[in-house]
Amino acid sequence: MHTYTYERLYQFTYKVLISLGHSKENAREATRVLLSADLRGVDSHGVARLIGYVRLFEADRVNPKPNIQITHETPSTAVIDGDEGLGLVVAPEAMRVAIKKAHEVGTGWVSVKNSNHYGIAGYHAMMALDEDMIGISMTNASPLVAPTFSIERLLGTNPIAVAIPAGNQPPFVADMATTTAANGKLEILQRKNQAAPEGWIQDKEGIVSTNPYQLKEGGALLPLGGDREHGSHKGYCLGSVVDIFSAILSGANYGPWVPPFVSFLPLSPNPVGEGIGHFFGAMRVDAFRPKAEFFSHMDKWIETFRNSQTIAGQDRVMIPGDPEREMEKERTENGIPLLEPVINDLKSLADKFGIEL
Amino acid sequence: MHTYTYERLYQFTYKVLISLGHSKENAREATRVLLSADLRGVDSHGVARLIGYVRLFEADRVNPKPNIQITHETPSTAVIDGDEGLGLVVAPEAMRVAIKKAHEVGTGWVSVKNSNHYGIAGYHAMMALDEDMIGISMTNASPLVAPTFSIERLLGTNPIAVAIPAGNQPPFVADMATTTAANGKLEILQRKNQAAPEGWIQDKEGIVSTNPYQLKEGGALLPLGGDREHGSHKGYCLGSVVDIFSAILSGANYGPWVPPFVSFLPLSPNPVGEGIGHFFGAMRVDAFRPKAEFFSHMDKWIETFRNSQTIAGQDRVMIPGDPEREMEKERTENGIPLLEPVINDLKSLADKFGIEL
Repeated sequence: MHTYTYERLYQFTYKVLISLGHSKENAREATRVLLSADLRGVDSHGVARLIGYVRLFEADRVNPKPNIQITHETPSTAVIDGDEGLGLVVAPEAMRVAIKKAHEVGTGWVSVKNSNHYGIAGYHAMMALDEDMIGISMTNASPLVAPTFSIERLLGTNPIAVAIPAGNQPPFVADMATTTAANGKLEILQRKNQAAPEGWIQDKEGIVSTNPYQLKEGGALLPLGGDREHGSHKGYCLGSVVDIFSAILSGANYGPWVPPFVSFLPLSPNPVGEGIGHFFGAMRVDAFRPKAEFFSHMDKWIETFRNSQTIAGQDRVMIPGDPEREMEKERTENGIPLLEPVINDLKSLADKFGIEL
Repeated sequence: MHTYTYERLYQFTYKVLISLGHSKENAREATRVLLSADLRGVDSHGVARLIGYVRLFEADRVNPKPNIQITHETPSTAVIDGDEGLGLVVAPEAMRVAIKKAHEVGTGWVSVKNSNHYGIAGYHAMMALDEDMIGISMTNASPLVAPTFSIERLLGTNPIAVAIPAGNQPPFVADMATTTAANGKLEILQRKNQAAPEGWIQDKEGIVSTNPYQLKEGGALLPLGGDREHGSHKGYCLGSVVDIFSAILSGANYGPWVPPFVSFLPLSPNPVGEGIGHFFGAMRVDAFRPKAEFFSHMDKWIETFRNSQTIAGQDRVMIPGDPEREMEKERTENGIPLLEPVINDLKSLADKFGIEL
């Protein structure tokens, strides 16, 4: 474990993205999106993935100079064709369209096709906060999750993020996979050779397993809830809604056809759409009531929940977004710790592109 | 247990609502909403609640002649004041406003204050289906749910429903409380004197309990996920988003201030808003892509999931809405079975209002 400053990882990532052929503007934005994951403590979605993105370029699955276009629209909606661009570039552009429409008619809703992995869902939702809007962001992803009672991997971890501005309080930012546990948590258990709790995964026969390697051996992640008795059908509903809003509305691939993030897995020979899909929303707070009223009640909501009485052994009740915001402050000041395998990956990229890490 | 035809329960419920002072039109609509729960197998939200609604009228907490009005709007949004009407009347009216706005600008989003309990969330979302729109419906509810790490009841079971039309396939209809298990399921266990699975409830100290009576003794329902290790913070996020969209956007009561459904519990002496809140959305499918394309891919999505391979011992993978639709067909043909205590409640209403059951 070594700690790197944000600035150092920023310069490195930016130069890698430039080397891949991105414009300066797109490289800057993609770097900000990617590193926001490291700052916020979502280590699985940050610079650790940079080598994966590079491999997608090498496999000719990403277009460094995408012509991102609106292909269909109404006053409050749009479909955007990402032109095979990096999701880190396509998603902020789509969110800007949602925000623009919300300025015009109160809300904006954008479904995206022909994109790639877009980093952390929360970043895009949070773009709405500065505009005094509620932001919503979701994406489909490579199939790793079995619907309740199925042994097939038909859904991704399909995250949903909702960012809600407040007045004096920091914003409410929910950013959650629709599975019991995200894949990143399983990878941590694999590294530590620890068992997974029941309700996270099933093996290839569909039997609940605590062996974290079962996912790689044909098993599947389980929808939020874990099993039927604990509401896994609800997690399955949520992941399905994300898939449908992201891909059936836009014309992207869905379900088992979503392209894999890892370049060594083949693309489906019979795609049902283009690339992966995202869905974004922006709702102007004052499209519903005067801003000052909204903010003062949002503050009161947050204070009420944060100050509620804890169960024994817990020192506080958190508001969604609290841990990530605190981590961001800490890592902005003290740097971002990276694991040895991640550093080695970055060093190999440094060699490949002749860039100093 | 006795079985009643839909028509018989319809006539009875309609006459009770007329006796309470509703217009014929409102009584008809409220009856349809209420009984849709019985038809769809959500017995906790159907005619079993009729006596509860009557008691709310008797406690002067419901207005039988509400003047339902838009108090704030943009082309794609509105806030509606339900004027203390029955949620069964206010909600369909709000959904119609969302649908009208979706016809005009692609999508419509309506937050509602000053309402009461609105029956099953799914009914209102499904109103969008005939218009070739996606429908969304959510509501806050009496506080029974503790956020992760809290011992206080700060959220309701706050359901979310999403209805998505398909082509040849029946529609996708998700309708789910954001808790591991809804209160109705707990009441069934209480009646049968059976233990609840771990992850459904905690006692008044915040310790996980399997005693279904603990909820009535100061405990709380748990958010979807059950405990932190199984993602209860995600259920807490979802329930919170429902509360904020339903009440902070509209000006209704939120969190611990949401008025109780049962008339014997007092209202808060310091309300933070008016009545309970709902939130509705309607998105025109062809605001995103041509209808025929959407429907054919939605059919393919449904077929893929329904025909996926099951785990041993399960005969099928369900699509959200399948069990309720099958139940509706069965009960429309063969009648609605009611438990003895429910029949006794209805008989007492029959006596009170001089109506034949």
